[in-house]
Order: sequence, then structure tokens, then C-alpha cells
Amino acid sequence: MKSYREMPAEELVKEKEQLIARYEEYKNMALSLNMTRGVPSTEQLDLASDMYDDLSSSGFLSEKGQDVRNYGVPCGIDDVRKVFAEILGTDMENVFMGNSSSLNQMFDALMRSMVFGEIESEKPWYEVEGRKWLCPAPGYDRHFRVTETLGFELIAVPMTENGPDMDVVEELVKDPKVLGIWCVPCYSNPDGIVYSEDTCRRLASMKTAAPDFRIMWDNAYVVHHITENDSEKGRIPDILSLCAEAGNPNRPYEFASSSKVTFAGGGISCFAANPDNMARAKKYLSVQAICTNKVNQLAHARYLPDKEAVDEHMKKHAQILRPKFAAVQDTLNKELGDNKDLYHWTDPKGGYFVSFYAYPGTATKIVSMCKDAGVALTPAGASFPYGKDPDDSNIRLCPSFPPVENIIKAVSILSVCAKITAIEKLLEE
Amino acid sequence: MKSYREMPAEELVKEKEQLIARYEEYKNMALSLNMTRGVPSTEQLDLASDMYDDLSSSGFLSEKGQDVRNYGVPCGIDDVRKVFAEILGTDMENVFMGNSSSLNQMFDALMRSMVFGEIESEKPWYEVEGRKWLCPAPGYDRHFRVTETLGFELIAVPMTENGPDMDVVEELVKDPKVLGIWCVPCYSNPDGIVYSEDTCRRLASMKTAAPDFRIMWDNAYVVHHITENDSEKGRIPDILSLCAEAGNPNRPYEFASSSKVTFAGGGISCFAANPDNMARAKKYLSVQAICTNKVNQLAHARYLPDKEAVDEHMKKHAQILRPKFAAVQDTLNKELGDNKDLYHWTDPKGGYFVSFYAYPGTATKIVSMCKDAGVALTPAGASFPYGKDPDDSNIRLCPSFPPVENIIKAVSILSVCAKITAIEKLLEE
Repeated sequence: MKSYREMPAEELVKEKEQLIARYEEYKNMALSLNMTRGVPSTEQLDLASDMYDDLSSSGFLSEKGQDVRNYGVPCGIDDVRKVFAEILGTDMENVFMGNSSSLNQMFDALMRSMVFGEIESEKPWYEVEGRKWLCPAPGYDRHFRVTETLGFELIAVPMTENGPDMDVVEELVKDPKVLGIWCVPCYSNPDGIVYSEDTCRRLASMKTAAPDFRIMWDNAYVVHHITENDSEKGRIPDILSLCAEAGNPNRPYEFASSSKVTFAGGGISCFAANPDNMARAKKYLSVQAICTNKVNQLAHARYLPDKEAVDEHMKKHAQILRPKFAAVQDTLNKELGDNKDLYHWTDPKGGYFVSFYAYPGTATKIVSMCKDAGVALTPAGASFPYGKDPDDSNIRLCPSFPPVENIIKAVSILSVCAKITAIEKLLEE
Repeated sequence: MKSYREMPAEELVKEKEQLIARYEEYKNMALSLNMTRGVPSTEQLDLASDMYDDLSSSGFLSEKGQDVRNYGVPCGIDDVRKVFAEILGTDMENVFMGNSSSLNQMFDALMRSMVFGEIESEKPWYEVEGRKWLCPAPGYDRHFRVTETLGFELIAVPMTENGPDMDVVEELVKDPKVLGIWCVPCYSNPDGIVYSEDTCRRLASMKTAAPDFRIMWDNAYVVHHITENDSEKGRIPDILSLCAEAGNPNRPYEFASSSKVTFAGGGISCFAANPDNMARAKKYLSVQAICTNKVNQLAHARYLPDKEAVDEHMKKHAQILRPKFAAVQDTLNKELGDNKDLYHWTDPKGGYFVSFYAYPGTATKIVSMCKDAGVALTPAGASFPYGKDPDDSNIRLCPSFPPVENIIKAVSILSVCAKITAIEKLLEE
């Protein structure tokens, strides 16, 4: 079929009429579809539901003989530290087990920077007026909200297919008020981008004006492959080693969790840091709490005793997720394949999102039209600092939770709205 | 027997010689006894060990049908909120469920005060130079360490048998730099004191110079009775209501956990606050994390569905603890009963500690002598701000973990050391 750009105005008007008729049909179906957030489906959650069944019969002792039901072992039991160390490609001593939320650990790390400062800080970050934070965009809205809440000015950095645009980053970090950057290096939220080794090395070695510059390395999807695996692209280098090699050993904090491995918000999480950062963090963490929940750690260690077990488990997730992600691609290709000059979208090999780029200036209207037709989408702009997409183009699609038939319906409606709004723009031009 | 005060010097010298002989005997036993921290014994932990056994077979839905294995329900499931509300005598809406550590929630609450301030704050507490915090002493060392770490000057307040000396407190809060107070209102750590209703009312209604003054009300032992129960002394009034009645609704934050009900550091915890404080806290808590661990909440709700179930469960703990606390009393009475003018100690009706007051100026030496004889005690002074007991008299005894025979040995050795050091002092005088 002809692309819209090739169509004369009268044809576009006719096409729009037909699309509006389709849209009204959808509206009359009184649908209620939700594609707003990257949450595991019930089928995925069921994969780990027997995790606690044998806990009491197997006893509550860690491999080292610690009773996980009692106080102590502030860094978490080695049984799980070693699993996360293997996953992250670092040493067990660099891993601190938190409770169920890695976001919570990122927030806490930055609260410590605010009140106590980092090793090289002249003063705690609370006192750095006009402090700034780099936000590769589109990115994770909750990351941005943390630094916004802590009074940082959010500086958007464009994304490339290899990660943040490093030319831009290297320029921005010449500003001593720029204190750090958010990174989701593997299957980034929402673009599904895997940082290249070159990007990782440049982040580790770049010269920053702020001596206490920090990388918040959220390895949220490190084992969350859908169509590829570690031996292919989905393995990024260990950022702790890269920074150490580059002479910036204190630069990174790394985070991971089992939220999308076992239970979302009910799994276990960790952060990793080099010995100096870890020693400093522990000084405050030992004041904050006696220990984190080791019972849950032991249940996880018994269930997923090493990376191999995790990888096997993640294959089951991939099996459930693959048809859902395929349904998004198939529907978008079918509906919008003739107009790839107007729209584009990602086809991620892992992670939880498809990032859809509508014709510039139409994303907000598309999301609003979808809402009226019973399809809840992440708000347009949500993946950008302050919720503002300068192109009003990006829409984050989350296909993990709904069944395939609902995904097809929702993405069809999205496509119809994307076509209507694009035609409106083309007719204006 | 004659008391030491009645003894002539030569008798005291002879007595001391005999005691030193006993002490050397103990030393030769190469004992290794630990009375340092208030941790549940294995027998106590076993009480709840089957808590997770039926979790998967009973399904993962809360009473409201929420899947606890997925994200969401940021305040925690009502199934447990209502249990803690009942325990604390407040409304469910005032209760926010955290993860496993209530200390963590206290720390987080104060970090928020530091960075964001409280409702009435002119500026965040980080900016309040010379900020001060009231520390009823002896008290909980970990409380004191939190406010010390956050840069507060710790002001010791003497304890009376009815709680903190309110005449002193009411005088101190006339200083606008005094921003709050730590309270363990029920079976205080370490003295086991239950605050009187009059003390609670005065705390709620006193006029403070700081408009954003806060009470950190750590109800750690609210259901932890040993020899009495709620209907007797061990029930303190709801501090949220008292403060609201007195026109200071935003004054209190209340905390509790199941650490000494189910698993220490592996249970569930909560804080309670009035609607305005809660709304403000949630504003930041929703940035900090998506939710806390609801799987563990559901396991707890199924196991202990209401306060009655909790009380029944706590009776089993009391049964295990009673002989241990009795062993401390019996041994102290036997060894030191003739010298109650030199020593005194508490006989708590609940909680986790016996507070022993040695002859002034001897506590540090007693702890050191005990260590040499293989008995680990909490460091002398630990229950005081900055670890400094002005009288060098208080020693916190924790009889919950060791078996009765070890308690008897440890307390006997303590008593021998207490007698030797007291005689030395008497001979000097």
C-alpha cells in the first residue's frame, strides 16, 4: 500500500474517515485494557510460587550455619550474595543484600549522599546549590523522580543505539554541578538498548569536573533476555572493574533485584560497590538497620542457587513473554508497516518494554484517544525528565501483563490513533 | 549475712580474697557465655517456623484480592495493617507497613526530616545548626546512634519509674533547637519501665519551643509481656489520640514490628502517624519504593490474623522467657540480696532486659572482668548517649538467648565481679 506521505490530500481525508470509523467501533466495544506498567503476569509469578514450600522442612540455616530467623549478618547471607555476584560479574564482597526493592536502595544511596556526602565530596550534596543529574532519555520515570525529589536539576541526554550519547555526556560532565547519571545498561527502560562496551568504557573513564561524580548503574534487566542470551549481545561488562581500571574506582553504584525473576516487590535486591564505597555505605547502613530479611534470602538461595539456575528460570519467563512481544511487533507491522517513515518502534531482545515513536507532536493526543477507547497507556512523556518529551512522540508499551488477545486489541487501537493523528498533522503541513 | 557496709575493713579484705578465689575458679572453666543482645532464642524462633508452609497452597491473594507477588499496594495489605492497628490502638489508615525493620523506618523518617523537613518546619533539619535530641537514659543504644549520626547533640534525660522525668523534659523543650525525643513507652530498653498515663499525657500536651518537635514512639515491646498482660500495667494509651486531643496532632511517629513475635529482622514492621504526617511521608515513600514485601505480610496475616492470635502466640514466648528472667532474679538475690544498698536491679514484667545497677564507678571494670572470665556483656555505658554512663553503674543483661544454666553461671560471675569491685571501692572510701 501507498505510504501516507505519498498520498494526495483527498486520499488522506478518505483514509482518515475510515480510521475514525474503526476507532468508533473500538470505542463501542467498551474495552478496558491496561498497558501502563512493566509488571510480570500472573503466569510468570506462578513460576516461583512454590519457593517457600520446603523452607521449614529444610531448616533455616545458611550454608555458613547462620540462623536466618535471627538478627545479624548485615550484608546478607553469602548464599545469595554469591548468586548476585555471579550475575553481575563481580566479587561477593562487593555485594550488599537489601530488602525487596532495588529502587529503595538507590533512593537510600542518594539520601546518604545528600546528608553525608560521598568519599570525595567537599560537602554533603544537600549543600550543593544548583546540583544537576544526567538523565539519558527516554529513561525510567521513577529514577528521574528520585533525583527531582532530591532537588537536582534533571538534564536530559539523548539515547543512541549504543547507550547515552557519550559526546554529549562528556561535554556535560565538565560542569562541576553535574554529580551523576542514571543508567540502565542492559535492555534500557523503555528502549531496550544494550550499552556498547565502548559506551561503558567512556562512562568509566571520562573526566568529570565533580570529583564525587557517581554512576547509578541499574542493572534491572541483566538476566531478562527474551530472544537472546548472555553469549550474544545481552551481556555488558562489569562496571566496577571498568571504573577501577580507568582510575575511578569509587564512581559506580550498581543495583539489581529479583523482582522480575521471582516476585515483583517481594523478591530480594542488592547493590554492588567497590570496597571504599561499600565501607562508607556500611557505616550508615549499620545505623539504619540491624539486618535485612534473610529468611527471604534463604528461600531465594535454595530456589535459585546459582546463575545457571537463574538463567534456566528466566527461560521460562522468556517463553511466556515472547508471544506477547511478538504480538506487539506483528500488530505494529501490520498496521503501520507501510509508514515506517512516520513511525518507528523498538524490537527489544530483552527487558519489559517496547518503545513506540509516533509522528512528532501526536503522542499526547494518541494516549488520550486510547484512554477514551478503554486502553490505558503510560502517559506520553513519562519516560522523559519532568514528564516532558520535547518531540511529544514517545509512548512506552508494556506487554508483559495482558494476554496476547488484549495486546493485539490495544496495539491495534494505538495504531489507529497513531494513524489518525499523523494524517491530521500531514494535512496541516 | 552482714551487709558489706556493716563489715569492718579486715572482714571485707577476707571476703574479697574468697571472692577472688571464686572468680579464678570461674576463669579456669574457660567458659564462653553471651548476654550481650536482646535476641530471641532458637526455641522462640521455632514457634513460628511453619509460617510459610501453607502459603502457596492457600494462594497469594490478600483479603481484597490483591496478588501479593506483584507490585502495588504501597501502604501494605490491610490484612496486616488491621492487626497492627489493633495492637497499637489506632485506625488502620494510620498504619504503613514497611519491610522487616522498624529501626529502618525510624532512620528513614529522620532522614526525611533532615532533607525535606516536617510539616511545621521553617527549613529542613539539615539546616538547623546545633540541633538537639532528647534521650531518656538508660535507653536503646541504636536509637541514640541514629540521632548522633544525623548530627544531633544528644541530651540525656533521667528515667523515673513512670518514664522520662517529665519535669526535666518540659524544661528542655523550651529550647527551640530540641527537635524531638526517643521513647520506648512499654517495657523500656533496658529498664523495663512502662510509661504512666500521666507521662504520656504530658509528652502529648507539653509546650515545645520547636513547632516541628517530634516524638519517636518505639512501641517495640507492646505485646511482649512476660508476667503480666494488657489488662494489667502493660497497656499504654494510644499516643496518636493523646497528641490529637492535646492539639499537637503531628507530634508523634509510632513504630512496631514482629521481630520478637515471629522472626528477628525477618518479620514485618510498621509505622503509624496521623493523616497529615502520613500524607507527607507517603509523598516521599512513593518515590523511595513501589511497595514493601507483601508476600511476607500475607504469610504473617494468615499466621496471626488478629491481636488475639498475637497475644496467644506471645504467651508461648513468655513461657520460654519466664524461667530465664527468673534465673536472673534468683541468682542476683542469692548473691547480692544482702547488699541491696550497694546494688539494685529491675524485675521487668515484659520486654527483653534486666537492668543491673552496680556500685557507682564499677560497671566498666565488672564488664571487663566478666570478659576475662568468658562472659560477654553489653559494654558498660552502652545504654547512655555517647556510650557514657555518668555513674559507671548500669549494665544491661539480656537473658533471652542463653539456656537457664548458662544464665545462672553468667549472672553468678557478674555478681562475684560486682562484689569484688564494690569492696575495692568501699575499702578506698
